[in-house]
Amino acid sequence: MSQAIFFHAGCPVCVAAEQQFIGALDPARYEVEVVHLGQDTARVAEAERLGVQSVPALVVDGQAFHINYGAPLSALK
Amino acid sequence: MSQAIFFHAGCPVCVAAEQQFIGALDPARYEVEVVHLGQDTARVAEAERLGVQSVPALVVDGQAFHINYGAPLSALK
Repeated sequence: MSQAIFFHAGCPVCVAAEQQFIGALDPARYEVEVVHLGQDTARVAEAERLGVQSVPALVVDGQAFHINYGAPLSALK
Repeated sequence: MSQAIFFHAGCPVCVAAEQQFIGALDPARYEVEVVHLGQDTARVAEAERLGVQSVPALVVDGQAFHINYGAPLSALK
């Protein structure tokens, strides 16, 4: 089981990505943790360390994928 | 079975997205077609119609998701 982390900030672009995209991942192989950086600002540094530059973003197997564009990470600090 | 289309143009960003991201989709629910727009320029119009603005992009259930940023669609015409 691999872990995937979906970082978002509650924006409309984020919600669309979460509902229609994250649900498409293989549940047999990926456990997806959803982190709302607007509420959980303590994890912004972790997201940065993982290479996240904007939300929404999905980190799979240690690599950050930016999906569309909602907000820059700097807006959440 | 839903269909997903991954549009790319052979760029390094595209290849990374294809290998590490598309493979994470649930194979029981999604059949993924990979389209190289640099080689198959006849399909650029189709990509545009689906809302694709840059590659790599994945269209799932009719919605376009831009994953990171490789090249604008206009560069492929």
